[in-house]
Amino acid sequence: MSVFTVVGDDELRHWLLQYDLQLISFEGIAAGVTNTNYFVDTTHGRFVLTLFETLKLDELPFYLHLMSHLARHGVACPAPLQDRQDRFASLLAGRPACLVSCLHGADVEAPSVAQCRAVGDMQATMHKVSSSFTLRMDNPRGPRWWAATAAGLYRFMPAAEAELLREEVHFQSQYRFSHLPVGVVHADLFKDNVLLDGDAITGFIDFYYACNDILLYDVAIAVNDWARQVDGSIDGARARAFLDGYRAVRPLSAAEAEAWPVMLRAGALRFWVSRLLDLYQPMPGALTYTKDPGVFRDLLLAHRTRSDFWL
Amino acid sequence: MSVFTVVGDDELRHWLLQYDLQLISFEGIAAGVTNTNYFVDTTHGRFVLTLFETLKLDELPFYLHLMSHLARHGVACPAPLQDRQDRFASLLAGRPACLVSCLHGADVEAPSVAQCRAVGDMQATMHKVSSSFTLRMDNPRGPRWWAATAAGLYRFMPAAEAELLREEVHFQSQYRFSHLPVGVVHADLFKDNVLLDGDAITGFIDFYYACNDILLYDVAIAVNDWARQVDGSIDGARARAFLDGYRAVRPLSAAEAEAWPVMLRAGALRFWVSRLLDLYQPMPGALTYTKDPGVFRDLLLAHRTRSDFWL
Repeated sequence: MSVFTVVGDDELRHWLLQYDLQLISFEGIAAGVTNTNYFVDTTHGRFVLTLFETLKLDELPFYLHLMSHLARHGVACPAPLQDRQDRFASLLAGRPACLVSCLHGADVEAPSVAQCRAVGDMQATMHKVSSSFTLRMDNPRGPRWWAATAAGLYRFMPAAEAELLREEVHFQSQYRFSHLPVGVVHADLFKDNVLLDGDAITGFIDFYYACNDILLYDVAIAVNDWARQVDGSIDGARARAFLDGYRAVRPLSAAEAEAWPVMLRAGALRFWVSRLLDLYQPMPGALTYTKDPGVFRDLLLAHRTRSDFWL
Repeated sequence: MSVFTVVGDDELRHWLLQYDLQLISFEGIAAGVTNTNYFVDTTHGRFVLTLFETLKLDELPFYLHLMSHLARHGVACPAPLQDRQDRFASLLAGRPACLVSCLHGADVEAPSVAQCRAVGDMQATMHKVSSSFTLRMDNPRGPRWWAATAAGLYRFMPAAEAELLREEVHFQSQYRFSHLPVGVVHADLFKDNVLLDGDAITGFIDFYYACNDILLYDVAIAVNDWARQVDGSIDGARARAFLDGYRAVRPLSAAEAEAWPVMLRAGALRFWVSRLLDLYQPMPGALTYTKDPGVFRDLLLAHRTRSDFWL
């Protein structure tokens, strides 16, 4: 979204009193395409203020309690602050807003093998510790969503592409994965949603696609991004490192190993469809800049012809 | 205590699995006279491990839940980690043990006016946000304790000192402060229990004397240390800065202002008595190094003759 909510000095100062925080200064953060973010400097240090442009106040508890739960259990991520009334979010400038701890580190474009291993390790930890998290959120971008969405996109697409998409939706519909381990997944653990300092993860961020789903699906989404090279192919060394890091914390079962090639395709399909949707049916007010859906089409084609899946 | 619990590599490695953490290395921390502390480096970063030498496992929830509550509400302090079973502490090497986040910063010996202001500000925030904390802990070092303890110490003390102590215990016994605001207090917010980075508080530490008591008593204990000069006198500029910082967040009532001079004496008395106890009746196994009780006797004498209390 290009919507950017401007917050006034006085209203922010007033809002921060709910946290007993005294404002020194604040400035907008350029990154972030869905929500509005500010750095907020207070007498108690720097925090990140997020104003939610689409999520409603009553939709936030799942995400914010999840981040709080993960932070308390040692998963590196922003810890949301509770206000005096123990709320994690309240309205500011007409938007649901929250305050989270400010992490150091930065995202990387070309991760090293060691960094891929560290992300796999932390993702597995996230999967394990989320087992004691009690709130639930269904995945709104699951198989039903991509099938319905694809159905509305075929007519805009070149025939060969539409045929490929139709084939993949059909291919995936033949599988049921109800026997695989489930839990809370990030569902969008791309390179730009992980902050690192050297090889150390300083934080997973942007949990607003998190939901309950198959754990292996989350791994597939992440490997599809962390090990993908500029030419769209997967770098085996980084994929193996990611999986090694993951399995050191949570070994994969035989059933998961068997499902892995199909899951990689599912992860590619989900983002191909959402990017096609952004391209052909952009939301009103959306950025003119749209990410290329083609990389996920190419990735899918590569996965279809692969015999080695780095396990 | 000079007791120092040695933890083995294998038992620590095994214990950390409860947090899904993988050990890289660990080393003892020299500071800390009551508990044993280690820096623990894991694949998910550095934490501080504390082994409790005197507190029992069932006594820990108050302190650890308090730190978690404060950290979640924006008070700079170590955040304890929950293990897979959602426990904040469990046994390690025969001791109750917990893992907390590792803060940067260091304690200061000669704080600036700005640092005193920052500590006052953060202490007031701690007092305010602890109002939503539901666990309770009576102060085991309150008036009943110091009166009973002093009664056992008089016979060891020079006559003039004993008389002074007796007078002060009697003086304090004339006051009842049940009309003053109460809440969770740190009760030991000395300079060595606050980490700073420049003028910014990076963390209050060592919450193991925290309890429910009169908020103003906590302020008195802190000002008695933060504004005390090497010669034992109080530096008015730093005392005023501390109080200004505090009152910017939580203004003092007229009743608190009235009680302030007596409270400063109560804060001095409490530590005079505990240091006299350490001197005359040291615990078995305690450090031979005992902190000088005399500074609190001198401080008390100074408070008794003062007319300006920096309000």
